Amino acid sequence: MSKRPTIAITSGEPAGIGPEISIRAAWELRADVKSILIGDAAFLAMTAAAINPAIRLSALSLQAVRNSGIPDFPRDQIAVIDCPLAAHVVPGKLDAQNGRYVLQTLDIAIDGAQQGWFDAIVTAPLQKSTINDAGVPFTGHTEYLAEKTATPQVVMMLATNATPQPLRVALATTHLALKDVATAITTDSLTGILDILHADLQNKFGIAQPRILVTGLNPHAGEGGYLGREEIEVITPVLQAAQARGFDVRGPYPADTLFQQKYLEDADCVLAMYHDQGLPVLKYASFGLGVNITLGLPLIRTSVDHGTALDLAAAGLGHADHGSMLEAMRIAAQMAAATRSSPL
Amino acid sequence: MSKRPTIAITSGEPAGIGPEISIRAAWELRADVKSILIGDAAFLAMTAAAINPAIRLSALSLQAVRNSGIPDFPRDQIAVIDCPLAAHVVPGKLDAQNGRYVLQTLDIAIDGAQQGWFDAIVTAPLQKSTINDAGVPFTGHTEYLAEKTATPQVVMMLATNATPQPLRVALATTHLALKDVATAITTDSLTGILDILHADLQNKFGIAQPRILVTGLNPHAGEGGYLGREEIEVITPVLQAAQARGFDVRGPYPADTLFQQKYLEDADCVLAMYHDQGLPVLKYASFGLGVNITLGLPLIRTSVDHGTALDLAAAGLGHADHGSMLEAMRIAAQMAAATRSSPL
Ligand SMILES: [Zn+2]
Ligand SMILES: [Zn+2]
Repeated sequence: MSKRPTIAITSGEPAGIGPEISIRAAWELRADVKSILIGDAAFLAMTAAAINPAIRLSALSLQAVRNSGIPDFPRDQIAVIDCPLAAHVVPGKLDAQNGRYVLQTLDIAIDGAQQGWFDAIVTAPLQKSTINDAGVPFTGHTEYLAEKTATPQVVMMLATNATPQPLRVALATTHLALKDVATAITTDSLTGILDILHADLQNKFGIAQPRILVTGLNPHAGEGGYLGREEIEVITPVLQAAQARGFDVRGPYPADTLFQQKYLEDADCVLAMYHDQGLPVLKYASFGLGVNITLGLPLIRTSVDHGTALDLAAAGLGHADHGSMLEAMRIAAQMAAATRSSPL
Repeated sequence: MSKRPTIAITSGEPAGIGPEISIRAAWELRADVKSILIGDAAFLAMTAAAINPAIRLSALSLQAVRNSGIPDFPRDQIAVIDCPLAAHVVPGKLDAQNGRYVLQTLDIAIDGAQQGWFDAIVTAPLQKSTINDAGVPFTGHTEYLAEKTATPQVVMMLATNATPQPLRVALATTHLALKDVATAITTDSLTGILDILHADLQNKFGIAQPRILVTGLNPHAGEGGYLGREEIEVITPVLQAAQARGFDVRGPYPADTLFQQKYLEDADCVLAMYHDQGLPVLKYASFGLGVNITLGLPLIRTSVDHGTALDLAAAGLGHADHGSMLEAMRIAAQMAAATRSSPL
């Protein structure tokens, strides 16, 4: 029997569905994953008991883990590293007093991954506004992880196993107004992204020679320059330089024809130029169960691709769907296994 | 037994796969569609005989049709309105001498649809360069149809019946460099597009009160202005004005979450803001068998969503896939039936 990977789950915004979906997913996957929840132990224990009295949580103090690492515990238990809330939680109601709590759970996860306690981090959704309202400038999980690990460039990937073979879509740009996309794609940025993508497909996915298919920026990949010149001036030269470094990268291809099974079945990843060029297909194909993966970090991080769903949390336990959380944990576990067996 | 619709099929670039896929699709659907091929009768008869000696073509002269309309003919025959080639055809080899021939087949189809000979037009692929090389400025089928019918604005839609329910995606902009998309979406253009879309969903698809879901231009539909302001300044006001006219239009929605079955199942059409935001999902979902439909014209026109495939044509008969042509004919037939039964 293969070793269960140890995965830290940050339970996210406490007033959202994060605590519930984290507990449900950790419990459901307990045979395959050694889950370490990070959050307020009393609050999570109360939530777990309300979900299903059979769920067994065991609390660990951060200090004890610092002293002696993650202990062994029975397979029918989920560990919680205790990180106390600042204020009582009312489901569905945001409270800026708990903004710093959410960041502390992230800090523990990042620190623990770097210490080697965890093979991967899975993050439940948080609410940016609560953290900003707590007086901490914060633009998102991904940016925070990059900053805390001193990573200069990260790459956003969405992946799913719901398709005939795994579908992975990475983005050359992410959360930018559409009018700013064309100028954001430069030789330097695209080169850096391809380097990260290639390296992480090798090291975190265990693909020896990853094949990456790259879209054009413009319709029909610019149609020979008639519909835009970025393919000629930026994308094609970057791909040729990467090929010269030995990368199996191909393109640029028209985005509307590239996303067809006959092309995808020979690819390990598609690199799309922007958010709405790559993600609609992935979310359609994954039935909304895409998993968000941050590449380029010195650790494995996946997350759900939905928000805190405060309305569902306010309606009480039993309304949230933990499907995306399960997928995020499964893909994190696969990546952890591939990383362990990676020759690099 | 319902009346078979009469559909004109322009056989397209003669050196491409158009003649073959037109004949195969017309023959396969002969029980349901009264197909009228438009092209060189001798050339098409020779091609048909080589495909399958059982296929029976019967030639009509344009003059005879002008005098007395489309005659009745047996259900196991396909009619051809003869339009002579200028030069001998070598499969796979373009010849500018036949550039005007391709336009003549279109002229006959347009004229015939306006005369009432045809319920719909289906166009096989042509090669723009051949027509331009023949000395005729030509930018595409759609623009030519608009000009010939004095239509000021048309809307491109792709549709498929390969999904659980029909998926239709219309585009607010089409073949434009990505950097020019944001400024091309104006109050006037978007209003005109919604008017055409609403009217044609009613009149050509027989949907009494069509529900149209509209994407935002920016990622997350602009996220309240943080990722672009076009949703606030242009799209939302246009949608509100359309709602005030009684249209069931909703949005703007983030494109990456909109294309999920749970949202699509309540919609008759998605209006995407640009080519690579809307078409990748549609082509993925249709397995490459999307059908291109031109809305806003005073006639029904569908077409395949692929090109002339000169390489396949050069390889000889039997290499081309006529699946997209079959779908284009089926959807044209459905639209013809809906138009006949439309109260308007
Ligand atoms: Zn196109
Ligand atoms: Zn996003």
